Amino acid sequence: MSDYNSIPAFIGVDWGTSKARFMLIASNGEVLDERTGPGIASLAGVDAIQAACCAGVGAWVLRHADIPILMCGMVGSNIGWRTAPYLMTPVGVDALARDPVRFEYQGRQLFIVPGVETMRLDGAPDLMRGEETQIFGALAEGKGLACLPGTHCKWATVSGGQITGFHTALTGELMALIGKHSILLNSRNAPHATASEAFTAGVQAIQSRPVGLETLLFTVRSLQIKGELSVASAADYLCGLCIGADVKSALTLYPHETAITLIGTPALTSLYRAALHMFGREAHVVNGNDAVVSGLTQIYMNSLVS
Amino acid sequence: MSDYNSIPAFIGVDWGTSKARFMLIASNGEVLDERTGPGIASLAGVDAIQAACCAGVGAWVLRHADIPILMCGMVGSNIGWRTAPYLMTPVGVDALARDPVRFEYQGRQLFIVPGVETMRLDGAPDLMRGEETQIFGALAEGKGLACLPGTHCKWATVSGGQITGFHTALTGELMALIGKHSILLNSRNAPHATASEAFTAGVQAIQSRPVGLETLLFTVRSLQIKGELSVASAADYLCGLCIGADVKSALTLYPHETAITLIGTPALTSLYRAALHMFGREAHVVNGNDAVVSGLTQIYMNSLVS
Repeated sequence: MSDYNSIPAFIGVDWGTSKARFMLIASNGEVLDERTGPGIASLAGVDAIQAACCAGVGAWVLRHADIPILMCGMVGSNIGWRTAPYLMTPVGVDALARDPVRFEYQGRQLFIVPGVETMRLDGAPDLMRGEETQIFGALAEGKGLACLPGTHCKWATVSGGQITGFHTALTGELMALIGKHSILLNSRNAPHATASEAFTAGVQAIQSRPVGLETLLFTVRSLQIKGELSVASAADYLCGLCIGADVKSALTLYPHETAITLIGTPALTSLYRAALHMFGREAHVVNGNDAVVSGLTQIYMNSLVS
Repeated sequence: MSDYNSIPAFIGVDWGTSKARFMLIASNGEVLDERTGPGIASLAGVDAIQAACCAGVGAWVLRHADIPILMCGMVGSNIGWRTAPYLMTPVGVDALARDPVRFEYQGRQLFIVPGVETMRLDGAPDLMRGEETQIFGALAEGKGLACLPGTHCKWATVSGGQITGFHTALTGELMALIGKHSILLNSRNAPHATASEAFTAGVQAIQSRPVGLETLLFTVRSLQIKGELSVASAADYLCGLCIGADVKSALTLYPHETAITLIGTPALTSLYRAALHMFGREAHVVNGNDAVVSGLTQIYMNSLVS
């Protein structure tokens, strides 16, 4: 006999731009089974998305006829399956659970978690879709500063169980663009996933001068020309400059947030953790996959069950 | 009868990465004839460079058998014709004139102006090749802050007729990379060459917040999604962010330089002038082509003639 807690309660789907993760989840948040699928960006239209979903959840729906499917991420964008709204900050888990997009497909209930929008401290709007679920999954105490490194790095303030504000930094995309196309790197090697000496030097360069990334990037080239930076280390130094600039700006925006939680892949969170340490801040690290499961389970428990 | 001053004194060549400009120049700096040719980056090896030079100066050398050829720019780099050294700052026109690379080709004297290197205020090395000639050509009084916008924007301090320091910002290359490859722009239109409302908004965004470009770039996208920025204006806003960040960093590095000279193409100098104005600084503008001619003539008069 199976433990009651291990009975499948819902199918959770973390469906982002570049990949999908389908999970059979128990009400205690245990992942009973799991498979991956293609991201929204590689699926042209709703028919392809439906087919990918069927492939992802196929075996489970036959065995568990009545459990719902709860999805978050770009699946709710205008290139996704159905467009889910953006809820304006402050937003709690209860609001996300109250207002999902609900629809039926092949007789099954589907739900897409809304995105979140905010007015940044600089007066511009900002948006997230998928990260809200990770944030609630990772910040168990419902307060602190969350940082989700990636192509578009999100920094979010959380207070009283609500996301109160956030901003997006283009760090990952900038690093990739510069690494791939600019004149700065001769060798197109990826940066190391640990904080090397060159990474540290990049963060220090940002830290020590009151100037921006655009003004320091050329040193990736000039240091190589003068023999002060090896071709093999240049990607690490560039990575240090980019992550250093991101962290410096974020700590300027949120100077009083001391409880910082990093959410993401081990490679990226370890580099951000090292950079934060150099700015005198320690960070708690949560695996991004675990955070999604926990967030989806909270949203499910908050409303779908009741 | 020709005025004595209009007798050809030398052939000046401004030979950069992307194009060459060959000029028949009188000792008073008058350009008597002119033609363009391919840049160093498109010429594979010394043979191709020699052939391009012959094509550029061909007609003149037959008529003016004994005048020298004075070149500046990437022609003196390790992908150029001959490698000219970098002279360490402070560097005056006299030093550039004293130490060119000299060699003979088909019985004619050729000279390549050295580049300049410096130790930046942030402790990293920096390099220029070609800009030094423009700076001496443009700053007639031998003092002030020179800004040469472009793919790699140079900011140089000049005092007592010498370049005392400088730094390179990657502004133009960043703008091009983001404009071409990133998710920020839907329409790949080039920014306008005049300071539009969207350009001004971009500079203001940089000006009003103590954060870096990496943290503000995503607003190019979020403002479009929320309908606050038109697709057609997005490139201008992006341009305002990039140039604004460059100007802000430079004025932080050189807070006491009030005499600013912009050297370059009318399109770029007008945008930088507008951004500088928003930071409360006025700038004098010199056309980059005129600056090269004046600089080459000064270097010629300083040494080759004597």
